[in-house]
Amino acid sequence: MAASSIRFGPGATKEVGMDFANMGAKRVCIVTDSNVVKLDAMKQAVEGLTREGIEFTVFDKVRIEPKDSSVREAIDFVKPYKPDAFLAVGGGSVIDTAKLMNLYNAYPEADFLDFVNAPLGKGLPVDKPLLPLVAVPTTAGTGSETTGTAIFDLVSKKAKTGIAHRNLKPTLGICDPINTRTMPSAVHASSGLDVLCHSLESWTAIPYNERTPRPTNPINRPAYQGANPISDIFSLQALRSTAQFLPRAVRDPDDHEAQSNMLLAATLAGVGFGNAGVHLCHGLSYGISSQNPGYKHAGYDVDHPIIPHGVSVAVTAPAVFRFTAASNPDRHLAAAEAFGVDISNVKRESAGEVLGNAIAEFLVKLGDQPRGLKDLGYKASDVDGLVEGTLPQKRVLMLAPNLSEELQAEKGELRKLLEESLDY
Amino acid sequence: MAASSIRFGPGATKEVGMDFANMGAKRVCIVTDSNVVKLDAMKQAVEGLTREGIEFTVFDKVRIEPKDSSVREAIDFVKPYKPDAFLAVGGGSVIDTAKLMNLYNAYPEADFLDFVNAPLGKGLPVDKPLLPLVAVPTTAGTGSETTGTAIFDLVSKKAKTGIAHRNLKPTLGICDPINTRTMPSAVHASSGLDVLCHSLESWTAIPYNERTPRPTNPINRPAYQGANPISDIFSLQALRSTAQFLPRAVRDPDDHEAQSNMLLAATLAGVGFGNAGVHLCHGLSYGISSQNPGYKHAGYDVDHPIIPHGVSVAVTAPAVFRFTAASNPDRHLAAAEAFGVDISNVKRESAGEVLGNAIAEFLVKLGDQPRGLKDLGYKASDVDGLVEGTLPQKRVLMLAPNLSEELQAEKGELRKLLEESLDY
Repeated sequence: MAASSIRFGPGATKEVGMDFANMGAKRVCIVTDSNVVKLDAMKQAVEGLTREGIEFTVFDKVRIEPKDSSVREAIDFVKPYKPDAFLAVGGGSVIDTAKLMNLYNAYPEADFLDFVNAPLGKGLPVDKPLLPLVAVPTTAGTGSETTGTAIFDLVSKKAKTGIAHRNLKPTLGICDPINTRTMPSAVHASSGLDVLCHSLESWTAIPYNERTPRPTNPINRPAYQGANPISDIFSLQALRSTAQFLPRAVRDPDDHEAQSNMLLAATLAGVGFGNAGVHLCHGLSYGISSQNPGYKHAGYDVDHPIIPHGVSVAVTAPAVFRFTAASNPDRHLAAAEAFGVDISNVKRESAGEVLGNAIAEFLVKLGDQPRGLKDLGYKASDVDGLVEGTLPQKRVLMLAPNLSEELQAEKGELRKLLEESLDY
Repeated sequence: MAASSIRFGPGATKEVGMDFANMGAKRVCIVTDSNVVKLDAMKQAVEGLTREGIEFTVFDKVRIEPKDSSVREAIDFVKPYKPDAFLAVGGGSVIDTAKLMNLYNAYPEADFLDFVNAPLGKGLPVDKPLLPLVAVPTTAGTGSETTGTAIFDLVSKKAKTGIAHRNLKPTLGICDPINTRTMPSAVHASSGLDVLCHSLESWTAIPYNERTPRPTNPINRPAYQGANPISDIFSLQALRSTAQFLPRAVRDPDDHEAQSNMLLAATLAGVGFGNAGVHLCHGLSYGISSQNPGYKHAGYDVDHPIIPHGVSVAVTAPAVFRFTAASNPDRHLAAAEAFGVDISNVKRESAGEVLGNAIAEFLVKLGDQPRGLKDLGYKASDVDGLVEGTLPQKRVLMLAPNLSEELQAEKGELRKLLEESLDY
């Protein structure tokens, strides 16, 4: 299990110029989006590089919830600049886009699908080191600063997919709680729901020693290796923190203690799921967000319909954990306990019901969340399309506990989960 | 915060040949000691390398609790062999010796004191990458498979010291619980006490944001950076596991569940203290073990007097945590709770007393432990010498909470801690 370097602390962004100077960088490509470019985190970054006399260019056109087309545009921007390092300042979309710019900048002749996860892409391994990438998250959600994963919409296939390889991991993540103070309340909520599902899914993923097939050579093990004793510690701690601090961070923009704890929880959950993996909420979410019937989430200042990633994963969570509980009732009860449920008299066979209810109650109390797929504009007749959008997510579905391996049975189970998620 | 790669699981040693093949190694120096060379872990290693057609040599003369002279001998062995990778199979003494062989093999012209921690050595930074080192621990103690630290006796100075730099970190640690089944009960106990102190000391070390002086450039931060939100998770979990599983692992050689949990605890504590640091128990231990008046610990099959490292750190623990509690009573109470103490009605000002008593009781119940320095053969008149042996440990003393910075006051406090540790 490898981890990126993480520097955590208020004011840590100020040192970013020295970090690049220490690694000998002379020409940095800064990646951000049109909102973050105006914020203090970017100001600190620009001042830091300037102070050290390091040349840089700024790409500020990252699309929130990136598509292959927006990623290609970013790649076309960076190639002629010939940077010697990357700096991503923003949320998961920004950091993921920077990872992809770094990857294709190192493979100028590659076809875009070469590295995309199979079966949608060729899933080729990244066989050379990339340029240094420093990530400064401005949301407390994706944990992308700790992972080797980059996610985007592949429009032609109507599916979210991604590229996952350890060489994509940022060299350094600078987690500065001051940078998440600028998040609107709606962004606190939806990015926090991503943390919630990262921690719940990695905590309940198929254990590393039960995952099949077992590669005979350790080099062939997937990045997502199943729940293991080290990821467990990260995932459970992140879950407890999220249950405790997310409601406070959403409710009160001045609760810096809660915000700081959520940034740490996002990073911890990133290490947890970056090693153990995620499963059904994430697997189902990619179809849900890419087949969006036109929903635009309140509080998101963008010019196109959007189901924020965290919303699309959390909407199926009550149904998902009712379904997976039979695989490991004790873990599901421990998760319910993290939400404050007194589990001392709960029977193991009720673990799914109890956890599903705890999650649903948490979402309702958080406020402004869709109470099911219907609130996103989906109808019962859309479920088959969503099942088809989920099936390509082999990489995460293989870690889903309790899911059948046989295709027809698997489809039936996914359909049932989506039907139960129409409203809760 | 960087971490080594760790692979954890029964049977993981079998894959070590493939690991070297995957990294392109052709000529491996295996480092071990005269006991471990006969064990199954070594057999697996040799078979694995042979199966992959990788050449190797075996250095099996590592001294338990290494001295500079034994380390020099190891370095002289490896230089003419010109390996392209190292494999350490053994406890902390073996892994630490392998780190030093790897270091001085890369710097053939260096003087031995060049890299030794100041003020005893010059403390030069390691400015080039070393050869790959795979560590297979056969004890559950040092966590050396996760750290960039190597410790030894510098005989001419009558002090334990070491070399600490992240480039010394093993590339991969293979934590295979089958390998610790061969530990005698006495080794389970003393290596487990090292884990206990790693976790207690790193959990209570001065927090990362209160450590002084604060370097203005992040590159000048010490490897031991003080307690921080990520090391905290590792340290507290390791403490809880040790309190729960060490007595079982010592009592019953067939309790493989307890042994496996202790191996994991050792690794978690290694990540915790490898980033946060240790303080007084370790600082005091180096004088205690190097000025050994002739004590030979029961159950250790060696031809010279020996105070095992874990015994030398734990013997002052009751006095140390009584002393440090005032710096952060809540953390000390949380530690007492890990030992099963009901803290609900304990006043914060009693935290030190309560934790000190809990540790003393734990040590007594574990069995076969000295009840103070007197049992090791030390007299009250030896205390001044032990204080002098402690003062050079600047690197760890700077993380000691509640300790005075002014030399005379510091000496007085250290003397008092040692006097209180004469018996408990």
